[in-house]
Amino acid sequence: MTIQLDRPTRPDDLTDLIGRHTAGYSLEAPLYTSREAFDLDMAAIFTKHWLFVAAEAEVPEPGDFVTVQVGPSSVIIVRDDDEQVRAFYNVCRHRGSRLLDDARGSVGNLVCPYHRWTYNVDGRLLHADNQPAGFDCSRFGLKPVHVRSVGGFVFICLADEPPADFDDVAARIDPYLAPYELGRTKVAHQIDIVEQGNWKLVMENNRECYHCDGHPELTSAYFPLHGYTAEDVPPRLRRTWDRFEKATAALQASCVRQGFPLDGMRELDNRPTGFMVAHAPLDGAGKSYTAGGESVCRKRLGSIADDRFGDFHLHMQPNSWFHLLSDHAVVFSVLPLSPDTTLLRSTWLVHADAVEGVDYDVPTLTHVWSATNAQDSAFVARTQRGVEDPGYQPGPYSEVEGDVEAFVSWYVSRVRAHLATTAY
Amino acid sequence: MTIQLDRPTRPDDLTDLIGRHTAGYSLEAPLYTSREAFDLDMAAIFTKHWLFVAAEAEVPEPGDFVTVQVGPSSVIIVRDDDEQVRAFYNVCRHRGSRLLDDARGSVGNLVCPYHRWTYNVDGRLLHADNQPAGFDCSRFGLKPVHVRSVGGFVFICLADEPPADFDDVAARIDPYLAPYELGRTKVAHQIDIVEQGNWKLVMENNRECYHCDGHPELTSAYFPLHGYTAEDVPPRLRRTWDRFEKATAALQASCVRQGFPLDGMRELDNRPTGFMVAHAPLDGAGKSYTAGGESVCRKRLGSIADDRFGDFHLHMQPNSWFHLLSDHAVVFSVLPLSPDTTLLRSTWLVHADAVEGVDYDVPTLTHVWSATNAQDSAFVARTQRGVEDPGYQPGPYSEVEGDVEAFVSWYVSRVRAHLATTAY
Amino acid sequence: MTIQLDRPTRPDDLTDLIGRHTAGYSLEAPLYTSREAFDLDMAAIFTKHWLFVAAEAEVPEPGDFVTVQVGPSSVIIVRDDDEQVRAFYNVCRHRGSRLLDDARGSVGNLVCPYHRWTYNVDGRLLHADNQPAGFDCSRFGLKPVHVRSVGGFVFICLADEPPADFDDVAARIDPYLAPYELGRTKVAHQIDIVEQGNWKLVMENNRECYHCDGHPELTSAYFPLHGYTAEDVPPRLRRTWDRFEKATAALQASCVRQGFPLDGMRELDNRPTGFMVAHAPLDGAGKSYTAGGESVCRKRLGSIADDRFGDFHLHMQPNSWFHLLSDHAVVFSVLPLSPDTTLLRSTWLVHADAVEGVDYDVPTLTHVWSATNAQDSAFVARTQRGVEDPGYQPGPYSEVEGDVEAFVSWYVSRVRAHLATTAY
Repeated sequence: MTIQLDRPTRPDDLTDLIGRHTAGYSLEAPLYTSREAFDLDMAAIFTKHWLFVAAEAEVPEPGDFVTVQVGPSSVIIVRDDDEQVRAFYNVCRHRGSRLLDDARGSVGNLVCPYHRWTYNVDGRLLHADNQPAGFDCSRFGLKPVHVRSVGGFVFICLADEPPADFDDVAARIDPYLAPYELGRTKVAHQIDIVEQGNWKLVMENNRECYHCDGHPELTSAYFPLHGYTAEDVPPRLRRTWDRFEKATAALQASCVRQGFPLDGMRELDNRPTGFMVAHAPLDGAGKSYTAGGESVCRKRLGSIADDRFGDFHLHMQPNSWFHLLSDHAVVFSVLPLSPDTTLLRSTWLVHADAVEGVDYDVPTLTHVWSATNAQDSAFVARTQRGVEDPGYQPGPYSEVEGDVEAFVSWYVSRVRAHLATTAY
Repeated sequence: MTIQLDRPTRPDDLTDLIGRHTAGYSLEAPLYTSREAFDLDMAAIFTKHWLFVAAEAEVPEPGDFVTVQVGPSSVIIVRDDDEQVRAFYNVCRHRGSRLLDDARGSVGNLVCPYHRWTYNVDGRLLHADNQPAGFDCSRFGLKPVHVRSVGGFVFICLADEPPADFDDVAARIDPYLAPYELGRTKVAHQIDIVEQGNWKLVMENNRECYHCDGHPELTSAYFPLHGYTAEDVPPRLRRTWDRFEKATAALQASCVRQGFPLDGMRELDNRPTGFMVAHAPLDGAGKSYTAGGESVCRKRLGSIADDRFGDFHLHMQPNSWFHLLSDHAVVFSVLPLSPDTTLLRSTWLVHADAVEGVDYDVPTLTHVWSATNAQDSAFVARTQRGVEDPGYQPGPYSEVEGDVEAFVSWYVSRVRAHLATTAY
Repeated sequence: MTIQLDRPTRPDDLTDLIGRHTAGYSLEAPLYTSREAFDLDMAAIFTKHWLFVAAEAEVPEPGDFVTVQVGPSSVIIVRDDDEQVRAFYNVCRHRGSRLLDDARGSVGNLVCPYHRWTYNVDGRLLHADNQPAGFDCSRFGLKPVHVRSVGGFVFICLADEPPADFDDVAARIDPYLAPYELGRTKVAHQIDIVEQGNWKLVMENNRECYHCDGHPELTSAYFPLHGYTAEDVPPRLRRTWDRFEKATAALQASCVRQGFPLDGMRELDNRPTGFMVAHAPLDGAGKSYTAGGESVCRKRLGSIADDRFGDFHLHMQPNSWFHLLSDHAVVFSVLPLSPDTTLLRSTWLVHADAVEGVDYDVPTLTHVWSATNAQDSAFVARTQRGVEDPGYQPGPYSEVEGDVEAFVSWYVSRVRAHLATTAY
């Protein structure tokens, strides 16, 4: 017997929920709350798409590694002796022991602590004791994970056949990222937050500024105008809009001077590797994410020649967003832990030669986004509690939530594509 | 494959367990332990029946609210500007954010903290920013929950069509409640306990005094004779019985003087809104629930004219019991949290004009039932541990557990009625 | 809809996994990780086989009891007034209350704290209040569990019909155990560890010394040669092997002198009650499990006449191993708690007349195996994390993991036997 609740909080058929999704409305509850939907998301989204998991600056030298948890999988990201970034499942091929416990570190070889099976950082099994004649080490190398690096950011894909459109996306975003030379940065700070909500709520929250009244630190530099046009900007934001238009003109002139691409791109929901890029001025001093818009690091990134270079941002489906400024970058990776918990990893990058205490200090560098993360975390948690309630039903998006709708639309289409190719 | 345990601790078919229930015996284990039975109880009992959730005294003024958790649902109980008590799901109609975090408080409007959607305390959506032309606020009011107030107690029902017999029950119990004028009380104290047991074990424990040797504080005032008659009272309780008979005669005389109904009513298992009322004298001084039976508040409730007015109690299925005394009332609401945890909320009410520290003090007021709750909580927890054990099998009720049997009988019949009307 | 993950981390059909097991390889992941496999193991293994749960020395006097948790069941092991060891489910036959909370103690009768139902320590219901005429106490005695004592060790079986080969095994191991007279010992120390891994990983870890580089304390006395032969012992262990051969000759001479059986037995995977016994010398002083091999208790066990009597060990499927030395015994019981947690109980026994502080001290007595347990616990935990990872696939056993393979082979055959006799 299946218990029939008066409301379908535990559907037998997520296919139906995906199939009947109403455009312009939030998703039905079980897609945010159930273990079954979490497993579906792991299978349809996180196992099949490219995920941003680390900055190259986190593994600068051969042997440097980080481990990242993608759903049930721990993945080792390691720079090999040829300076290539590699990715492997963090599991010994003997009896399955976890190889590396630490979140980051440096190794010569990868040696399993249980029975000393020893792997090269390129994944080859080099040695295992007490094997019978005919044991073939080449059959027991670490299981590889697809890995690509774009503009200093490391993406992995757990699929056997990753989405083929990633090359195209990489080629198109690279001209925007290249001037920042993010491969020549270092990690100034990194914070992990466990959000008390489904990963999709974390993403949706990021994709709109309808709630930006709740972000006083952010809006002291960021124009809270996401989704608005000159026609529909509300009276309370009219003066902000005027400053925004002047700052936009100045930013565009700077781009022209520096040969930086002028136009944004927005292909959020019409391809496997959905993405958008946009370049927006900042308020106040207009230089960086601080109260008042002042710079937070004295060394500019890469070849950027203008402090007032605004906020270049890249959004990628399913799990990341990036803010690049003249003096630092702050980048975000979203990794689901369970139906109602999600890891948000925020990483601040500064020029490799910047000196802490001289060129920057961490509290100032991280102030705006630390505060913003904490506020968003509360919004996500209260939304999770709400969508778990049988009283929840999907509601309509406002006119300034277009990128939320694009995320949801991308999600629904990708799950449909997965279901269409999966035998049940 | 379904794993077949040697004993049916995880049945596929709760319908069978309900169908084969043996009258006079406790329920089979999965009904107390499984997630499936919990979901069934939510669907068949807590979503379909009237539940006691608050005293009116908890929301005395317009805008005053409490939030209560009924299974997966948070419900706002709020007094509107016309002084009517209203109930709503505590979920925003936009993207589902929880509206109110606090267990109690006071508001002007109900404003969602996420995107500022603003509702009147009568549930109407008053305002939402950035909506397209044609957006119709009237489609997005808060989702209402049925609510009724009887004799100062607030009941809600989550069903689309609540049981129709509630009006009859309300009419029949009102003459007993009215003299206490519980609408003119205030909350002197409230305690929430999370019991480590299934909600049915909490109810069953309340419905008998076979275990009252474990309640020395309670039995210093309460006659531990529940279920006994003059014929079967055991020798060790014979002297207690003699005092009980004398006190009963005095109480009946007082009822006659005051025009209070003499007879009890017991319709525990033959209707959707099962209930019973009974009026019993107290031991010792006979006035209230204290060691020795002395009063705990100097102000008598309502029109009660006699300190020695015993214990008038009301039991209601599925989730409440109420003790009304000349000087205070103590009332109990049981709300399931999970298969093996249950919230027991105990609320002590005194006359609205009683002054703490002058007319009553909280430790004295709450002493007997705080101790009793703690003792019962231990009994419930050890029973939960036992029924989770494959060594458990339903056992027979004794002759003084008739109201436990009535509760179980009511439960089985209500689940059967639910299953008969639900398509699978 | 069943979500189809790209890898079968949540199989619908454990029967298939058992059916396709590859000899010589570790088990497939779901058998170590899933709730379904845990339930299967409870049904096929822990409900159907004899389990070592206590030493007789834990219940020396009538009324002495211990309670042990076997999966969802709590079992009382109690010595009755005729000095027989009895076992019962720890559940009252009335409404299912847990009878005994404590892990050990002593009672006259077994009295339920809830409603005072009173049982003799032989399980008979002696008294229950308020029963109707015709109530038959003999129908409501405690539910018995099969119990056998062999050489001072208590085994229970939850099956209706326990494996019949236990008598044979008992008869064959008794001559090895008898000289130690373990019934005349006392418990010097007992430690419970909750391992963060499936019970099978705990057992597999015990069944090989391939990882013994990780046990420096153990290998100061124990020859880390398990699974090796004179032909395949690696060069780094050659000198150890030479010492081992000399010590073996001396031990055999001592056995002949004392009339102790010379030969081991190894029937690990060809019968329901799989077992092995072996007698091995110790390194260094060769007397006991200490750094250097010195004795840890001045009183020898039973009739053992030689301090240098090595390590007699008994392994039993599914859940135990025993080390008997001239001066003490240390014995281990493995009890699954959940798919990924397992209780390991280690008990040290010394001569009943040995005096703590005079003949032995606990830190010295327990040093080697306490350290070894902690090291093994870390190995088990990291293996559990690994096999939960979709990157895990079963790997090959080395030449020195034959007893691991035998355990796995026994397990697979016993589950197959269970599935063959169970209707689905």
